[in-house]
Amino acid sequence: MKQLSTLSIAVITTLASHSLFAQEPIAIIEPAKITQPEKVELGKMLFFEPRLSKSGFISCNSCHNLSLGGVDALPTSIGHNWQQGPINSPTVLNAEYGLAQFWDGRAKDLQEQAAGPIANPKEMGFTHELAVSTIDSMPGYQSRFAAIYGKDSVNIDNITDAIAEFEKTLVTPNSPFDKYLEGDKEAISESAQAGYQLFKDKACSSCHNGPAVGGTMYMKMGLVKPFHTNNPAEGRIAVTGKESDKHVFKVPTLRNIELTYPYFHDGETWTLEEAVNTMADIQLGAALTEKETKEMVSFLKSLTGEQPQITLPILPPSNANTPRPLPFTN
Amino acid sequence: MKQLSTLSIAVITTLASHSLFAQEPIAIIEPAKITQPEKVELGKMLFFEPRLSKSGFISCNSCHNLSLGGVDALPTSIGHNWQQGPINSPTVLNAEYGLAQFWDGRAKDLQEQAAGPIANPKEMGFTHELAVSTIDSMPGYQSRFAAIYGKDSVNIDNITDAIAEFEKTLVTPNSPFDKYLEGDKEAISESAQAGYQLFKDKACSSCHNGPAVGGTMYMKMGLVKPFHTNNPAEGRIAVTGKESDKHVFKVPTLRNIELTYPYFHDGETWTLEEAVNTMADIQLGAALTEKETKEMVSFLKSLTGEQPQITLPILPPSNANTPRPLPFTN
Repeated sequence: MKQLSTLSIAVITTLASHSLFAQEPIAIIEPAKITQPEKVELGKMLFFEPRLSKSGFISCNSCHNLSLGGVDALPTSIGHNWQQGPINSPTVLNAEYGLAQFWDGRAKDLQEQAAGPIANPKEMGFTHELAVSTIDSMPGYQSRFAAIYGKDSVNIDNITDAIAEFEKTLVTPNSPFDKYLEGDKEAISESAQAGYQLFKDKACSSCHNGPAVGGTMYMKMGLVKPFHTNNPAEGRIAVTGKESDKHVFKVPTLRNIELTYPYFHDGETWTLEEAVNTMADIQLGAALTEKETKEMVSFLKSLTGEQPQITLPILPPSNANTPRPLPFTN
Repeated sequence: MKQLSTLSIAVITTLASHSLFAQEPIAIIEPAKITQPEKVELGKMLFFEPRLSKSGFISCNSCHNLSLGGVDALPTSIGHNWQQGPINSPTVLNAEYGLAQFWDGRAKDLQEQAAGPIANPKEMGFTHELAVSTIDSMPGYQSRFAAIYGKDSVNIDNITDAIAEFEKTLVTPNSPFDKYLEGDKEAISESAQAGYQLFKDKACSSCHNGPAVGGTMYMKMGLVKPFHTNNPAEGRIAVTGKESDKHVFKVPTLRNIELTYPYFHDGETWTLEEAVNTMADIQLGAALTEKETKEMVSFLKSLTGEQPQITLPILPPSNANTPRPLPFTN
């Protein structure tokens, strides 16, 4: 009898918490389900592969550093020949949850995104043709592509497909906030709980929602007051051509936001306190008290999840057929 | 009786092989013995720490990439503001076996070496003071230093001590050649065996010897004929001031040489075949037949050992007290 009632209580508690959290704007991040481990491993090699750049020096991991929350922690990125990038590098962590990729959503998915920087003259500065020749010159890559995609299958679509498959594994489950959502009320501080309530009450969650706490929509940066920046990026208008999309950007994820400073598309804001107050001001026309700011920051810090544990790949050596890097050529 | 004689034969074989290999110029590489795992882990974090550079972009691993045999696989390295380095980046793998560090031996050990690039304006472009302030600003680092070195112990000596302790673990044991040395005659091909015999007969091993197959002495580059290069490095004369040390460099390790192209201090030779022939020509005044070159290259490729398996460290986030990176300042 006693065991039965314990079970009943557990069932009731579970149902109650499910019905409660069904109404929450934020969903938990699930651990990665790896169904194609060979493709993920190949994608990891390519993610860390500096020979996908003209210089032989810049890899995906250079600007989406998995030691640093999937970003470079710089206002804007450093590209080929130390060129200054136009916009803050978004995190690769939980990026799969985005409705599209890049700040302006110009790539429909992770695969399409991965092709961009390789051939961007201000980023990796290479060409898809040379990237393919480089990878295809190495038997260590050829055999892996053959096993996954079939014979003679080293091409840009498969290179970016493998990178995307690896990136899909870069999720950060089990944050304190997720444990809280799952019913562990002790998982986050009272201050963080108050911050979450505020986050909902002030309607932050009307844009920052879903598993990634962002990435589900486009929104104007500077909804009630203009956002002051020297950064010339105009956002989604570059994709749609619509005047109404000027200064409209993909809402960024708030997962691991403690790690992904500096903030906003211009990367000019270094602290969460300042970022929160700027958002309140320009998106809501509101001012937070010092206590409210602290609570909001406590909540945001509870969104830092378990970082992917990555074993550094060992890359196959170049050989006489591999195009040589050109680090000091513009 | 039968078991006893099998044992006797095993003992005799072991003794014979020991006495045989006691006379070999190359010794096997032992696996790393980690006695201070917390220090090694801290050193790994610092080795991957781009915030030890002015830009926040360049870490030890940028030029000693553990995915690429501990080198950047470029003729000379890329430094702060894309400056071109003066010399080919030597591998960090098995570097502890060197009698000193850098091509000219100007640092007595790994710890002294590690301090160099951080403050070199053409490499990481930082200062030791700012590097220390940066690391010391982060509680995640402070607590690790405190546990290892005591309270308030973030300083450049301890930073470089930890990096050196990590680097000592970067050895590559169990190469096919080491297995051969240990008595497994099948571990390397007949061609590689012939190459090794040639390596000894031609006296390559008079300079390239010891566990790292190099690193045990300084030697003139261009012993019988001058080495033609546009690289202005003059080697050990910069340390000793002696005219006789002009163009004298530390003999580089040949361990993992298949991975550490391009070759020589100028990094202008991309294939092992060409490197072997240049060495024969300028150091020995000899010419190898095509067959001999092939055999030598087979032998050299048998020196590729097990690469260190590195779990990428997760670095603590910067905060309001952390000096901000200056990527676009000269």
